[in-house]
Amino acid sequence: MTRLPDSELVLIPGGTLITATAEEGRELAITMARHSIHKIQPDAEVLAADRHVYATNPDSLIATSQVIALEFQTIAAANNYWRD
Amino acid sequence: MTRLPDSELVLIPGGTLITATAEEGRELAITMARHSIHKIQPDAEVLAADRHVYATNPDSLIATSQVIALEFQTIAAANNYWRD
Amino acid sequence: MTRLPDSELVLIPGGTLITATAEEGRELAITMARHSIHKIQPDAEVLAADRHVYATNPDSLIATSQVIALEFQTIAAANNYWRD
Amino acid sequence: MTRLPDSELVLIPGGTLITATAEEGRELAITMARHSIHKIQPDAEVLAADRHVYATNPDSLIATSQVIALEFQTIAAANNYWRD
Amino acid sequence: MTRLPDSELVLIPGGTLITATAEEGRELAITMARHSIHKIQPDAEVLAADRHVYATNPDSLIATSQVIALEFQTIAAANNYWRD
Amino acid sequence: MTRLPDSELVLIPGGTLITATAEEGRELAITMARHSIHKIQPDAEVLAADRHVYATNPDSLIATSQVIALEFQTIAAANNYWRD
Repeated sequence: MTRLPDSELVLIPGGTLITATAEEGRELAITMARHSIHKIQPDAEVLAADRHVYATNPDSLIATSQVIALEFQTIAAANNYWRD
Repeated sequence: MTRLPDSELVLIPGGTLITATAEEGRELAITMARHSIHKIQPDAEVLAADRHVYATNPDSLIATSQVIALEFQTIAAANNYWRD
Repeated sequence: MTRLPDSELVLIPGGTLITATAEEGRELAITMARHSIHKIQPDAEVLAADRHVYATNPDSLIATSQVIALEFQTIAAANNYWRD
Repeated sequence: MTRLPDSELVLIPGGTLITATAEEGRELAITMARHSIHKIQPDAEVLAADRHVYATNPDSLIATSQVIALEFQTIAAANNYWRD
Repeated sequence: MTRLPDSELVLIPGGTLITATAEEGRELAITMARHSIHKIQPDAEVLAADRHVYATNPDSLIATSQVIALEFQTIAAANNYWRD
Repeated sequence: MTRLPDSELVLIPGGTLITATAEEGRELAITMARHSIHKIQPDAEVLAADRHVYATNPDSLIATSQVIALEFQTIAAANNYWRD
């Protein structure tokens, strides 16, 4: 097993949901989704093999995009939708 | 690998969730869903092959429409539902 | 390919989430879910073939009803739940 | 084809999301979920055959309960959670 | 068929979403998810057979936990997140 | 059967949704998701066998991350998104 570096296991990198821009908020959503998977499966080799599977499977990609949408709902609300 | 152009990898094109109309907000929801998939799989050839699969599979289409619904929830809230 | 008429590709027919009644709001939810699928797959023949599959498959029907529920959450909030 | 009676195709029976009790709100959630399926598949015979399948399949039952949970989120919010 | 006792078919046992503690709110979420399944499938024998399947299937367990999360969102909001 | 220790069956460890930091809120989301599964399947041996399956299956991992996202929506709202 090749354990991921600690930085990949921080659940909310930066420690806050607040971001300067919507684009950064979206990047945080993607990172949070990835890191919660890292917490469950911290073996870099298993993850790399998995990636080969899901990144070429349309249904897996759609499911991934759904998780990103859900994380982003939370982050966008936290930032009052970057309205100001 | 044929990498997507950079414009397809911007997570929130325009950089804001605020749109003039509900129709534009819906278009943004679709674009955001597509671009988060681009971020995970930036190879245009793989995406084109995937599209052939999911665009003819009813369950994949339904799953896609679910992601659009979730993204739209966020965008609609950001725009106060275009009530004014 | 038999392309759907343009009216089937409008994402939010009427251009607003506001409806007079809850029943109309629910109809809008169904239409919005259908039209986002049209945007991804605008070929009427493929859609007709798909329909034969998903309309007789219980799991597809349940998945469809889930998308309707999500769209309706947004529309109901936009209308303050037609409380007044 | 045996078409469902019209009453089974009303999307929101009673025309309102407001209910006297939480229990009635929950019943409405179930009815709304069922009726949106009726709208897509109005053939009573197909529905009866489907029911035999999904009502004995654990994953279908779980998926159904998820749709009910989503509909109930909307109804509960509409009723201010029956707090008063 | 062995029909479940009536108490298992009450959709919201206690008739309210308000609970004294977060722990009780979480228990209510589980009960509400279970009872909506009971409403669809009230045969205790079918449910017992189903349980044997889903309780040992990781994907079914994950799907079940998703329904609990959704029900809990509603209950937690109803209780103002037990903040006071 | 090897029953899980009681501490693994507490649905909301600590008894509150309020956490000091976003990172702790995220950890609570993961714990709550895991413990609701424990409530349904309290046999440590079945869970260990399950883990071997889902932790190496990309679609199961994605589904798990979706549940975490949903639980976190609730916890983040409870904490006013740790804005202060």
